[in-house]
Amino acid sequence: MTSRIDFQTDPSKYRHWKVEYDGPVAWLTMDVDEDGGLFDGYQLKLNSYDLGVDIELNDVIQRMRFEHPEVKTVVMQSGKDRVFCAGANIRMLGGAAHSHKVNFCKFTNETRNAYEAAEAESGQKYIAAVKGSCAGGGYELALACNHIILTDDSSSSVALPEVPLLAVLPGTGGLTRVTDKRKVRRDRADVFCSTEEGVRGKRAKDWNLVDEVVPNSKFDDVVRERAAEFAASSPKADVANGIDLTPLDRTFGEEGSVTYSTVEVTLDKGGRTATVTIHGPKDTAPADMEAFEAQGAGAWMLRCARELEDAILHLRLNALDEGLLVFQTQGDPSAVLTHERLLMDNKDHWLANEVLQYWKRVLKRIDVTSRSMVALVEHGSCFAGVLAELLFAVDRSYMMEDEFEGDNRPIATITLSETNFGPFPMGNDMTRLHARFYGTPDAVEVAKDHLGEALEAEDADELGLVTMILDDIDWEDEIRIFMEERASFSPDAMTGMEANLRFVGPETMETRIFGRLTAWQNWIFNRPNAVGPDGALQRYGTGMRGEYNMERV
Amino acid sequence: MTSRIDFQTDPSKYRHWKVEYDGPVAWLTMDVDEDGGLFDGYQLKLNSYDLGVDIELNDVIQRMRFEHPEVKTVVMQSGKDRVFCAGANIRMLGGAAHSHKVNFCKFTNETRNAYEAAEAESGQKYIAAVKGSCAGGGYELALACNHIILTDDSSSSVALPEVPLLAVLPGTGGLTRVTDKRKVRRDRADVFCSTEEGVRGKRAKDWNLVDEVVPNSKFDDVVRERAAEFAASSPKADVANGIDLTPLDRTFGEEGSVTYSTVEVTLDKGGRTATVTIHGPKDTAPADMEAFEAQGAGAWMLRCARELEDAILHLRLNALDEGLLVFQTQGDPSAVLTHERLLMDNKDHWLANEVLQYWKRVLKRIDVTSRSMVALVEHGSCFAGVLAELLFAVDRSYMMEDEFEGDNRPIATITLSETNFGPFPMGNDMTRLHARFYGTPDAVEVAKDHLGEALEAEDADELGLVTMILDDIDWEDEIRIFMEERASFSPDAMTGMEANLRFVGPETMETRIFGRLTAWQNWIFNRPNAVGPDGALQRYGTGMRGEYNMERV
Repeated sequence: MTSRIDFQTDPSKYRHWKVEYDGPVAWLTMDVDEDGGLFDGYQLKLNSYDLGVDIELNDVIQRMRFEHPEVKTVVMQSGKDRVFCAGANIRMLGGAAHSHKVNFCKFTNETRNAYEAAEAESGQKYIAAVKGSCAGGGYELALACNHIILTDDSSSSVALPEVPLLAVLPGTGGLTRVTDKRKVRRDRADVFCSTEEGVRGKRAKDWNLVDEVVPNSKFDDVVRERAAEFAASSPKADVANGIDLTPLDRTFGEEGSVTYSTVEVTLDKGGRTATVTIHGPKDTAPADMEAFEAQGAGAWMLRCARELEDAILHLRLNALDEGLLVFQTQGDPSAVLTHERLLMDNKDHWLANEVLQYWKRVLKRIDVTSRSMVALVEHGSCFAGVLAELLFAVDRSYMMEDEFEGDNRPIATITLSETNFGPFPMGNDMTRLHARFYGTPDAVEVAKDHLGEALEAEDADELGLVTMILDDIDWEDEIRIFMEERASFSPDAMTGMEANLRFVGPETMETRIFGRLTAWQNWIFNRPNAVGPDGALQRYGTGMRGEYNMERV
Repeated sequence: MTSRIDFQTDPSKYRHWKVEYDGPVAWLTMDVDEDGGLFDGYQLKLNSYDLGVDIELNDVIQRMRFEHPEVKTVVMQSGKDRVFCAGANIRMLGGAAHSHKVNFCKFTNETRNAYEAAEAESGQKYIAAVKGSCAGGGYELALACNHIILTDDSSSSVALPEVPLLAVLPGTGGLTRVTDKRKVRRDRADVFCSTEEGVRGKRAKDWNLVDEVVPNSKFDDVVRERAAEFAASSPKADVANGIDLTPLDRTFGEEGSVTYSTVEVTLDKGGRTATVTIHGPKDTAPADMEAFEAQGAGAWMLRCARELEDAILHLRLNALDEGLLVFQTQGDPSAVLTHERLLMDNKDHWLANEVLQYWKRVLKRIDVTSRSMVALVEHGSCFAGVLAELLFAVDRSYMMEDEFEGDNRPIATITLSETNFGPFPMGNDMTRLHARFYGTPDAVEVAKDHLGEALEAEDADELGLVTMILDDIDWEDEIRIFMEERASFSPDAMTGMEANLRFVGPETMETRIFGRLTAWQNWIFNRPNAVGPDGALQRYGTGMRGEYNMERV
């Protein structure tokens, strides 16, 4: 295994971002350390970024929500002169394996989505204060902010030069946000996205590429004013103190296995399978939100979400050959339900809201993870409420039926709760149960009638909650055959199939970014015109343009 | 240039399909001639198909609408024993260039969409009567029918074996129709799409993969009954006689240029550009629908649609290096308007309806054509009504402003009509004007206030109908620079960019097929696991499975 990519960091380790907290306004400054790249072979010049820069940004956003609930406006700005951000580092992209490019884009997309949604989820609004050139991934950083202020000078512009310059797409949501969020007229979008030097000044405002264009001399004042205004009009309640996101309790074992306090990851290299086992809460739930806040990052609902998220990201980047993720749970289902109930009963409490919204994001990460996923509902498991949601996120599920010889664990059950019917929508804004029962919406209502019941295999099957129930005689063989078969298929075909089957029905900007935009980008990432020896990515910086096969396909 | 692929055919030339007309029911039999492949190197065994088979099917569907308006139910069945259809021919796919695979899938998708929509557009409902194995593209043929009857015997099944067997996707809408049309529960879809042998009998019905499962002994009776029932309940008016779709007036010139009666295609090989010029009607419009019917395929509105469609298909398949399509018109705008008005005033007339619906399909073909497209609104042009729709289909447009020295043609104008506000929706069910003004919906209403006005450049620009207006001084240079620049970009990046920018907002099954599904398939079509020397497509038929790189990306 090459060196492990770690998604955990904290402010003491940041090399690329600085945050100054000033009451309800946070000043977030991108000041990328040229020599701080995650890999060798490139320098992060001109505030260009690699995955390491984004891992820090993700950490900033997360801590903003939990550690700094007093923040209502975040101003994203550059610490460099004359450049806001030059986008993803091209030498990094040119040298990276296809799988790394794809995973890099997925994670950066998730990070953009996270701070874009912070306004709706939590009343934290991000402003992009753009001075200097703001190109490619740099403009995509700004596009995901919910207000863009551009200074009006000759060197400040917004641009998506990927197509003319690099023969790839602005793949971190750029094209989709230009059309669907900024709603730029289509022919103008065509002009904009094929103009290397971008657009500045009045035209940028007229075309709605930015929200405001401000003279250089007034820029700092206007940004300050706007930050204060948005903070004042934010619906976010005043909360003085957050909780600490303390380091994860985490031990890496051999070959990529990991043990957390509530999550265990084991790898079967030969079987190309990783098993993620989630342990339900062992302690009783906090009595109230005060007690929950006192537990802070130690509270099971928050701890488990953080550990599960880290496990998923770890597997995505560090265990590329494990094409199948097996989800299991062990514990007391009713304990899971009491822990989540406290949050559901206190949705208006800032921290309850943050933890629920966080679970939503973690579950969405699972939805877009390009691995085959299966859940095994074994005896002793606790697929209840938020953990039952995993059953509807995975591609299929198997459940133990009746007693198994020599297995003394409590009989396998599934328990639905309110959390399966609303708080954790997928990227397409549907609940996973609605997506599951897209053809038979009544089945959602029927399932709702069984809220809180510990459903054994036959009932769960009857309600359509699992793919297959198996008794002692068939269980082992069936699961083994499934796993062997799955492990034998082409991973590319599985990725394409799952990306299509998982998202039924309506689309949102988010699903379009992970669906259409990403799929086209991945196609281009395989084409010689972009990545071949004479392709644009390889030739970047040599002064020569890419040499293209001009055939249109 | 390799031998030209021709999209024109007629029943006298069919090698793969037979149609028997029996009053309101048409019996459409697929009986593929093994030796009738479009290229050498493969045999079309087991009713497998290549582009040539689909060109005939497209012709059947089109003639059903125009020549056989008496038909209300079409029964699609197989002329072979024990096989309905084995899908796209794998050896053909294995040997085909990437561009051919992509174009093949696009055309087959358009054909599926066409007969799927025939029920809603024209009251012609397609039934798939499935006896024998119905696999891959075979099941996709059935999925696009609006009723599937499967016989219940041990050898009859429906299957999508692409993923396990071929390491590619069921790319002719299969995955999308399973989830979005048949609304199969997601985990069942996962099981179905990864099970090589497919599903038969009761389970096929329980999972909604088919509408009816009928014992073999009763199969023919039930199919006949159902065909009669659907015909009886069709809202389609009784029409005794259709019109003949006579052969196109078409002359091919050098290097792929074509001259039709109303359309002219010229190629600039060096500039990698093709120009499509549409000539407006020279005769006055038919006085009424009786006169229109008497003109039949000679009527300008129908003739122009057929010629334009043929030109687009010709360019897609036979002019791969021409990355930019330039649309021009010449003629009298008011003549275009009087010709289309007759149809708009008689929408309830079967033939008026068919011609309008046909224009809708032709314009949709333009939307999904993966070439950069520009419209030049020159003096003497007739971008009015249905032809103005081209301005909103292309990626950008330039319009002549004021008089040009030595140019005595009437000043350039654009005229909107009712047809720009409803009858020709894009695949996402939005009008092109709504899509254009997604961010400023009021602009659609403002444009509507100018219905019927011949808008000169400044007004058209003010209303946002064109990208740029240019006077005599700038016209030539600006257009030349644009064309040279466009021709220099990577065609792959342009394809990806345009596929994203052209379809804003809501999605439908159709846009998901051309967007997400197709993009993933194209990605897979570039991956060694599918197309490499040890990939599944190359190894098909050798008895060896593909050898895969198991890394998940």
